[in-house]
Amino acid sequence: MRSDEFSDRETKARAEKILSGVKTVYMGTNGSHGHPNVRAMSPSKVEGADTLWFVADLNSSKIIELVKDSKAVIYALGPRNAAECRLWGSVTILDDEASKKMVWSDEYKKHLFPDGVNSSNMRVLRFDVSNGHYRGKGGKYGEFKN
Amino acid sequence: MRSDEFSDRETKARAEKILSGVKTVYMGTNGSHGHPNVRAMSPSKVEGADTLWFVADLNSSKIIELVKDSKAVIYALGPRNAAECRLWGSVTILDDEASKKMVWSDEYKKHLFPDGVNSSNMRVLRFDVSNGHYRGKGGKYGEFKN
Repeated sequence: MRSDEFSDRETKARAEKILSGVKTVYMGTNGSHGHPNVRAMSPSKVEGADTLWFVADLNSSKIIELVKDSKAVIYALGPRNAAECRLWGSVTILDDEASKKMVWSDEYKKHLFPDGVNSSNMRVLRFDVSNGHYRGKGGKYGEFKN
Repeated sequence: MRSDEFSDRETKARAEKILSGVKTVYMGTNGSHGHPNVRAMSPSKVEGADTLWFVADLNSSKIIELVKDSKAVIYALGPRNAAECRLWGSVTILDDEASKKMVWSDEYKKHLFPDGVNSSNMRVLRFDVSNGHYRGKGGKYGEFKN
């Protein structure tokens, strides 16, 4: 087993550096029939390693899964896959106008929500991080708690 | 909800095309405290969308998780993230010489298993696919069962 080699603070800062640079993260959820599920997602907004925001279609499998069980994990890879971080937390599904406006990007209009920020099938996912870890070059490792 | 637009056979063929071209897939497992877990992995060997082989360190979290619950999911993205496939199945952890030799690559010697194919901490993971799905451009979608 690896021992913690980065301090709590250093670990979180390194995880945040990865998160600020990626377009794609991987969200794991508790899926159906006792299977985990994973999909690529693009965060709408990243507030450090504390809160990540996403949009989702009401009819997507992740919404169905997160309604049943809000526990989730976010996994992200740094440049050239040389580092990774993992964030554990839970997801709150939001349907209010303020949240929708806050995460809205006109990019979403093209494929996801042609009716704009008021699309009836648009939901906002707020992922609140409880704890996480980071692994860098040579397996150097750390954990943090929020 | 999306309707199935690719036949079973076409879906599997498209998933196999993604799998044959990727270096990295994302494996979801049932982790600790009821949380899912996800990590990037490089398959050692891909036998279509039927069986995928990996190596793992006996001390890694995935081994601990898979001993408790063998159910897993593999997620892979096609070139330019334009398509995705997802495979559900279960993982068998193997420790026999034949399996280790079959998946061995000298690349593993560098970072993972410096003692070579007989490294005592090396395990082989065989992921047997039970079913899967594929989503291509414009959300065109299909499912298959093995």
